[in-house]
Amino acid sequence: MASDSVGADRATALRALHRPGAPVVLPNAWDAGSARAVEAAGFPVVATSSAAMAESLGYADGEHAPVDEVMDAVARIVRVVSVPVTVDLESGYGLAPVELVERLVATGAVGCNLEDTDPRTGELREPSAQADFLAAVRSAAQRAGVELVLNARTDVYLRGGAEPTTLRAEAVRRGRAYLAAGADCAYPIAVGGAALDRTTLVELVREIGGPVNVLYRPDGLTLAELAETGVARVSFGPGIYRASQAHLSSTLATLR
Amino acid sequence: MASDSVGADRATALRALHRPGAPVVLPNAWDAGSARAVEAAGFPVVATSSAAMAESLGYADGEHAPVDEVMDAVARIVRVVSVPVTVDLESGYGLAPVELVERLVATGAVGCNLEDTDPRTGELREPSAQADFLAAVRSAAQRAGVELVLNARTDVYLRGGAEPTTLRAEAVRRGRAYLAAGADCAYPIAVGGAALDRTTLVELVREIGGPVNVLYRPDGLTLAELAETGVARVSFGPGIYRASQAHLSSTLATLR
Repeated sequence: MASDSVGADRATALRALHRPGAPVVLPNAWDAGSARAVEAAGFPVVATSSAAMAESLGYADGEHAPVDEVMDAVARIVRVVSVPVTVDLESGYGLAPVELVERLVATGAVGCNLEDTDPRTGELREPSAQADFLAAVRSAAQRAGVELVLNARTDVYLRGGAEPTTLRAEAVRRGRAYLAAGADCAYPIAVGGAALDRTTLVELVREIGGPVNVLYRPDGLTLAELAETGVARVSFGPGIYRASQAHLSSTLATLR
Repeated sequence: MASDSVGADRATALRALHRPGAPVVLPNAWDAGSARAVEAAGFPVVATSSAAMAESLGYADGEHAPVDEVMDAVARIVRVVSVPVTVDLESGYGLAPVELVERLVATGAVGCNLEDTDPRTGELREPSAQADFLAAVRSAAQRAGVELVLNARTDVYLRGGAEPTTLRAEAVRRGRAYLAAGADCAYPIAVGGAALDRTTLVELVREIGGPVNVLYRPDGLTLAELAETGVARVSFGPGIYRASQAHLSSTLATLR
């Protein structure tokens, strides 16, 4: 019971950190060591990146890492930090909503990302099917008496293949549908493609009409500029892991 | 059968790389991602560091990481590289020699470090007891028909508490005993303390009379200088991991 109460407190704390205009910043971690570093640096949340975690475990992103290994890695992270942990669960690894919630809660994590790409086809799921899935996850959590912070990612911009206005309309449609289905935050990853401008992001945030997560890009808007657009959450995805790996490769090249 | 043959080939290759004067250099890895980076940089072997692996998994060094988690992490490394993998097994995690060999071989690794500190007491084991343990591991490998490259670490210099000449005599005594028991290499870690000089190392290598592993120190002898002393193996221990973590902490501090 104590741990349930801790989980609820952590989930509430994580949800409260989604403040439009003063976003929670998530330099995504991949193992217990990097998670400790994130907490030690003063960040109030540890979020995982599925790509970073998969690569550190020796797998490719896109649900190639066995879900057991992912959940074990998440549990190792939760064990060593005292801040809320939220997990990039890709499309849910094929787990049914009840099992997804059970397994996530068993790790001690209090939030997750779920994206709308079907890893078997690489295509986007229908928005209604994804909204139904998110609603089923929310419902499973409620029936289990579990607070869970649901971040609903849409891969509309990753998939691309349409004019900017069409992509934006689709991202807004999906963001609104996912929030209506019970998600706490909508995450149009890679919004705007390579040339994200403030105006586009401001409009997207307004049109989605709820908390929005944006992916940070080293060559894009600064954290302060992103905050001004009204986003509630900024993720680094695998960026921190890639920077660490680049540093490692450089160190090793010097040794050779 | 194919994998047994691969294992034997890898073990033979690893053993052959122990060349006095032209040492194998081991920038120790801790997970599949770092192991891939070590191989990609052109190193012919991946060696793990127990401290680095434990910390990346969220544990302290000194056999606090559950052996199951360590073996799983080793298996993930072996899965993604094609070079031989050798594992820092601390004092053996309390495993009996037969089980130690079975579990190590099951991961696909072909070598291991075994050190003579008793993790329960923090004291050095009696040299004869440690030699018996190493001989039993060697025997278990032979009975299983397994090629295994055994690196016998002595913690004499870590323990300290005596004059340099006394420590050196004890390191030589143990190194010789461990090689006689069937070890392929003797590893007097932290030899010479903070002020390792070439003369001490040259004498130690000569007196031990077999392949010697030395720990690299950023503020100590260069790799070329170490090679000139006649050592056959140079390890970085947790040095590469610590450098990566320092870089990560710096990146995170900048973000804050």
